[in-house]
Amino acid sequence: MNANDLDTPAVTIALGVMEETIRRAQAYYDEHGIAFRPHIKTHKIPAIAHKQIAAGAVGITCQKMGEAEVFLAAGLKDILIPYNIVGAQKLERLCNLAKQGTITVSVDSEYTARGISEAANREGVEIGLEVECDTGMHRAGVQTPQEAADLARVIARLPGVAFRGWMTYPTTRETVAFFEVASRLIERDGLKAEIRSGGGTPGMWQAHEALPTVNEYRAGTYVYFDRNSVGADAATWDECAMLVHMTVVSRPTQDRAILDGGSKTLSSDGVGGGQKGYGRIVEYPDAVIYAQSEEHDHVDLSACPPDRRPDIGERVTVIPNHCCATTNLHDEVYGVRQGKVEVVWPVLARGKIR
Amino acid sequence: MNANDLDTPAVTIALGVMEETIRRAQAYYDEHGIAFRPHIKTHKIPAIAHKQIAAGAVGITCQKMGEAEVFLAAGLKDILIPYNIVGAQKLERLCNLAKQGTITVSVDSEYTARGISEAANREGVEIGLEVECDTGMHRAGVQTPQEAADLARVIARLPGVAFRGWMTYPTTRETVAFFEVASRLIERDGLKAEIRSGGGTPGMWQAHEALPTVNEYRAGTYVYFDRNSVGADAATWDECAMLVHMTVVSRPTQDRAILDGGSKTLSSDGVGGGQKGYGRIVEYPDAVIYAQSEEHDHVDLSACPPDRRPDIGERVTVIPNHCCATTNLHDEVYGVRQGKVEVVWPVLARGKIR
Repeated sequence: MNANDLDTPAVTIALGVMEETIRRAQAYYDEHGIAFRPHIKTHKIPAIAHKQIAAGAVGITCQKMGEAEVFLAAGLKDILIPYNIVGAQKLERLCNLAKQGTITVSVDSEYTARGISEAANREGVEIGLEVECDTGMHRAGVQTPQEAADLARVIARLPGVAFRGWMTYPTTRETVAFFEVASRLIERDGLKAEIRSGGGTPGMWQAHEALPTVNEYRAGTYVYFDRNSVGADAATWDECAMLVHMTVVSRPTQDRAILDGGSKTLSSDGVGGGQKGYGRIVEYPDAVIYAQSEEHDHVDLSACPPDRRPDIGERVTVIPNHCCATTNLHDEVYGVRQGKVEVVWPVLARGKIR
Repeated sequence: MNANDLDTPAVTIALGVMEETIRRAQAYYDEHGIAFRPHIKTHKIPAIAHKQIAAGAVGITCQKMGEAEVFLAAGLKDILIPYNIVGAQKLERLCNLAKQGTITVSVDSEYTARGISEAANREGVEIGLEVECDTGMHRAGVQTPQEAADLARVIARLPGVAFRGWMTYPTTRETVAFFEVASRLIERDGLKAEIRSGGGTPGMWQAHEALPTVNEYRAGTYVYFDRNSVGADAATWDECAMLVHMTVVSRPTQDRAILDGGSKTLSSDGVGGGQKGYGRIVEYPDAVIYAQSEEHDHVDLSACPPDRRPDIGERVTVIPNHCCATTNLHDEVYGVRQGKVEVVWPVLARGKIR
């Protein structure tokens, strides 16, 4: 089947583009001796993770245990979950994961570390722990190198868990100093942060600047890239592999078109890098998806030449703002090579909220 | 099982609240002699649509054909799809729907009307058509009463389709005048807009003010209500039936908490009515979910009393900004009565993008 015969909206992945990106990213991390651990939340498809591992990735990153369950079931054995796992039901699941593979999680509090330790000790498994450090995101994470060191010392004394190192997101100017101070503080206790994990697609090609402090890197979005990646100068338009096929279903005015996508197809996530709107229409780069309803994209055509505007029934392809959020809305995506659908991928880890 | 034992995040529906809303809304439309046609995109669950029909609704509204397929399969027989159906594959599906029930769709162009007519005529079915009118939304829809009348006249002459009336969203001050002028313009041709359909939860309790011009009304969000409904004065907090249970997984600072939800659980849709943030935390109404990642809600606690802030591991419940978008992210929701889970509802029409 030709990609252009897929009923719309349809999410397609340009296989050649994606494969080249996987190769090129791995080559970059290999060149610099940085361990690369792709984040699968972008694609949620084990077959793509296997391609990333085959290229040389040391393992994968999952954000929720439900994702890790899917990827373990698909044969991916080394998984980092950079998330605070809290609560009895989750701790039982976490121990079950550790019976199937090598599992590392992040923690930012003694409460959370002790909970994991008790569960792991009871279940007879070992969970690797990285201390989550807030080096500028102001989300989760310990706030100072001293807090990081204190938590590392607590972890080192707990049964069922092993202190592995530091984790942060994204990798900022503060990251190197934070990690270095924290590492020095635990040296006197004979502790070592073997893994010092940074992450983020926007800065993925500058990871070597944080060497040797940051020695492992996580990126997810890179596998498809998106408008935000281009806005951050991490990719060009031609390197964006996810294209959402849509149809023009209404042309109510000379300056307005309505596409059959909307926030249920693209997500309502915004865009950075001085761009506006909800996606880039490849065929009409001057058009702006200025608003969305759940099932409508509202397109402003006023910047397009009057004689070159789409008609009702015409197909267009859209590069989304944030491909990870788009992925999570779809039961399947279509892998395309030279215009033909080569593979239909069920998005096996879609909707794993827990 | 108690709702508080559900692992988080979990989307719960307060059954008593929802049932009372269904009753009260239908009573309002019955009192005013307005046909009520609830939009199922909010819940995407046939069992709830059956409750709405049992209460007295004349039929349902679906936004995509994939939703209509699910609801037809569940025994709902009278369906309006207020959407321009374009393209050969969709037209074939549309005709198949019409073999299973009474199907009405909206159109805003001759191109779209002719496409439906040709397909329906070929397949030997009849599709009801309403002319979509743009009475202030500036989305799809004909722009003037004259255009509406012209399109009605075209439809009236086409085989396989039947002109049913006017459709708009939302119902604005311009709606009554627009519909009345359009109706007068077709009177001379012996045509009548029998159905004059308005919609929108924000204005759902003012629908009688558009009588007798608007004689059918569509509302979706009302079935659960949400922060936007409260912001529009269509509901109170106690009338919000969808509550998303979450757990505090990090307390990195005195003023910040992190919940295990995020945009993958709530959606990144914004809020109106002078409110801010991504949801209302019922137990901490002064807290603000000021930012989201896909799997994290970032909460500002600075407005909460210092001695009354949540600990790591504590559960909270969140009223989302836009419950329809939240629904579309979840494979199942939990119906709760008096604190106990009474029903697990698969969200059968989730993710029906086509």
